[in-house]
Amino acid sequence: MPPPVRSYVLRREDEATHPDSIRAALAEFFSTFIFVFAAEGSIFALDKMYTDTGTTVTSLIMIALASALSLSAAVASSIHVSGGHLNPAITFGALVGGRISLIRAIYYWIAQLLGAIRPLGLILASGEGELRELLLEAVMTFGLVYTFYATAIDPKRGSLGIIGPLAIGFILGANILVGGPFDGASMNPARAFGPALVEWRWRHHWIYWLGPFIGAALAGLIYEFMVIPTEAPHHPLHQPLAPEDY
Amino acid sequence: MPPPVRSYVLRREDEATHPDSIRAALAEFFSTFIFVFAAEGSIFALDKMYTDTGTTVTSLIMIALASALSLSAAVASSIHVSGGHLNPAITFGALVGGRISLIRAIYYWIAQLLGAIRPLGLILASGEGELRELLLEAVMTFGLVYTFYATAIDPKRGSLGIIGPLAIGFILGANILVGGPFDGASMNPARAFGPALVEWRWRHHWIYWLGPFIGAALAGLIYEFMVIPTEAPHHPLHQPLAPEDY
Amino acid sequence: MPPPVRSYVLRREDEATHPDSIRAALAEFFSTFIFVFAAEGSIFALDKMYTDTGTTVTSLIMIALASALSLSAAVASSIHVSGGHLNPAITFGALVGGRISLIRAIYYWIAQLLGAIRPLGLILASGEGELRELLLEAVMTFGLVYTFYATAIDPKRGSLGIIGPLAIGFILGANILVGGPFDGASMNPARAFGPALVEWRWRHHWIYWLGPFIGAALAGLIYEFMVIPTEAPHHPLHQPLAPEDY
Amino acid sequence: MPPPVRSYVLRREDEATHPDSIRAALAEFFSTFIFVFAAEGSIFALDKMYTDTGTTVTSLIMIALASALSLSAAVASSIHVSGGHLNPAITFGALVGGRISLIRAIYYWIAQLLGAIRPLGLILASGEGELRELLLEAVMTFGLVYTFYATAIDPKRGSLGIIGPLAIGFILGANILVGGPFDGASMNPARAFGPALVEWRWRHHWIYWLGPFIGAALAGLIYEFMVIPTEAPHHPLHQPLAPEDY
Repeated sequence: MPPPVRSYVLRREDEATHPDSIRAALAEFFSTFIFVFAAEGSIFALDKMYTDTGTTVTSLIMIALASALSLSAAVASSIHVSGGHLNPAITFGALVGGRISLIRAIYYWIAQLLGAIRPLGLILASGEGELRELLLEAVMTFGLVYTFYATAIDPKRGSLGIIGPLAIGFILGANILVGGPFDGASMNPARAFGPALVEWRWRHHWIYWLGPFIGAALAGLIYEFMVIPTEAPHHPLHQPLAPEDY
Repeated sequence: MPPPVRSYVLRREDEATHPDSIRAALAEFFSTFIFVFAAEGSIFALDKMYTDTGTTVTSLIMIALASALSLSAAVASSIHVSGGHLNPAITFGALVGGRISLIRAIYYWIAQLLGAIRPLGLILASGEGELRELLLEAVMTFGLVYTFYATAIDPKRGSLGIIGPLAIGFILGANILVGGPFDGASMNPARAFGPALVEWRWRHHWIYWLGPFIGAALAGLIYEFMVIPTEAPHHPLHQPLAPEDY
Repeated sequence: MPPPVRSYVLRREDEATHPDSIRAALAEFFSTFIFVFAAEGSIFALDKMYTDTGTTVTSLIMIALASALSLSAAVASSIHVSGGHLNPAITFGALVGGRISLIRAIYYWIAQLLGAIRPLGLILASGEGELRELLLEAVMTFGLVYTFYATAIDPKRGSLGIIGPLAIGFILGANILVGGPFDGASMNPARAFGPALVEWRWRHHWIYWLGPFIGAALAGLIYEFMVIPTEAPHHPLHQPLAPEDY
Repeated sequence: MPPPVRSYVLRREDEATHPDSIRAALAEFFSTFIFVFAAEGSIFALDKMYTDTGTTVTSLIMIALASALSLSAAVASSIHVSGGHLNPAITFGALVGGRISLIRAIYYWIAQLLGAIRPLGLILASGEGELRELLLEAVMTFGLVYTFYATAIDPKRGSLGIIGPLAIGFILGANILVGGPFDGASMNPARAFGPALVEWRWRHHWIYWLGPFIGAALAGLIYEFMVIPTEAPHHPLHQPLAPEDY
């Protein structure tokens, strides 16, 4: 007989008292933020491109792509920490099925609602110009580097490391659908450097270094010191995932 | 010599008498429902947007995307239970190749045909207004949470857990291509909460909580108590998948 | 020290004399056929929709999607048998790098060129009407069921089984981009049954059962008896893939 | 207690003195080149199709798709060698989080900036005609075969081999979005052979053999002899990945 399956996401008896509940809520908050930024931001981007935003097929495809790509990336970046809910309804379904405790569900709901408070509106309220471009590049690169950290570096990511390349490409694509009409959505100084060198255009170029570096540093620090546990992995949920878990 | 390969889907001698045949047929039913809802629903969405529904490139891309994304998600949510056929022709191919018994094939065909009976037509027949929005949100969130349960929680899912984030993002994207022109296709109360808070618009807001919660609860209960077996895994097909199976 | 890595694709000393060279060439042939059918067929579909086929952004996106989705599916359906080349240039790159013998490269080149001889042109030459619809449904379902067999049933597929749901959804999407403008591209009798029942339209309905069943039976028989080896797995390349191989 | 997790990407003590730093920088260079070629090239393709390149929804979707697909493929083709950064901001985030040494970060930054220097501009400067078509086919096939080598052949690729079929399809799709308006973006002699045979058009046909073969040979030689280490795997980072690493 094979060993019993250990669920790597949820274990009823541990839920209520687990010291990682805060960490999981943090993961829900940041990943919901990353998802909602792109899913809702794509609607802002459509508004920016058109005065008339009637529903057209291409607009619908754009919103569906931004939502699907960003949700795949955001679930991949939190599934090994919090289970990747990012949605009060999913948390409710897991609660009804007995897969999560009520206490943890409440933590998740608060984190999800906070993460979904429209961040792009705040940035756009800063007016056009260099500050807005800097903020946008910082926030979009934050999402990219957070996803990279969670799916390609985090030692707890288990087999999820396999979808790292997909998650990273997907969040780039989703953020381009948001930032494209605003500042070009580079999120990558090298991507901005090539054209600047060939065309010898260096005005504003510092924005495409400073913005991404601020976002990347925040993502690196937050993920490394708040989401990855620093203690030795003595708790079952801290254990690296054995192949049997998949 | 290596151990013999165990097929995790089909084992001829067990097919006819397997106590899980009903469970597999249920999985075929629900996943076919989820696939057909999006694949056919995208055509309803096109009808809603245009009076003239002549074939255009963007319409074709939209239908292809809705079908591809929802089929990937639906196969991922049933492959470890029923083999993920969702199509009488695939079941026929497996029958001809000797990979499924005739009895089980008949179970599957009935489940697939029942799952494909146009569900969206019924909902749209309820007329415009709050009831239709509530029903749409409930049905679409049912598909999302069923996919989540099958690919991210089900302990039998094996290595398929790896594509959980993709399947979850894909079914969201597919359902947006259906529900977008009707009610906005939130499937996520947090996604609806952010804009409502900032713009202080609370009318109809309860729909975006009640609808998704009904769909999520149904998905959680059905998957937890009807699809995941509750007995101890003493039958080979109940065994957690060992890495050698992949 | 860990065990040495065994390449599951290519092993120089075995290449020239391997009894599976024919089987690998068959896999190259069928998968190249499946890829080229969608990649080139999408151009036929554009021609059918427009008299003017000047390059537009949406046309380009449609061709890129059909090509990307079908190539992912076709490589997934052959990588564990032949290495998934499907392209004389890739075979040449593997030859130059010393990963394939000249004899096997020649086998592959012949199979790839035969698989790429425009099959859709032959079908369309049969004129409009029921025969063409039947042939199209049969050929498209052949691709779908062949992909299903290779990625979700084949016991040699190893960890590739994980991408089965993606490959199956992808080939459906790619084939819809081909067959959409011609006959609706069902490839699934249940998908055709739902609307026929609700609208009580049964004319031509038999096409959407007979066509897919012919394609599915051919795919099941060819894959089961020509591509999956029937002997006991005594040869290294026949061994199930151990987890260390990935 | 489980064995300690070994990060397959970064190990602080080894970074500064690691003999593979050059190899990793090479991988960063080539993969950044492959990503930027498609991400920036899609903008060239839009310029070629339209005199007016104002931002439209379809143009934005095209750029987002080219960027997402090519980044997924490029990260997949370098994650097991260099960690798949391809972006100075990601390297900065990893530096701030303590996951990479300053010396290696500087290597990566140089490689990323060199890889991002607009290669398509140089090719297009060669004027229209056979030489440009030959160069384009060679460069695009180089990206395709490099991705194939890294994700489907490289014995160090570990579980990443699973996403090989996706990465290969994705880079084909991204490159079609670049080369489509210029020469048709075949990257596959068999794909060009089928139509040429049926329509008996052999003019320029040699380009679609010679171009891809040059690109494929370069990719095969570079990857086989510069990126895959030729010595015995005595260093930990050279070890095949054990299943526990995922």
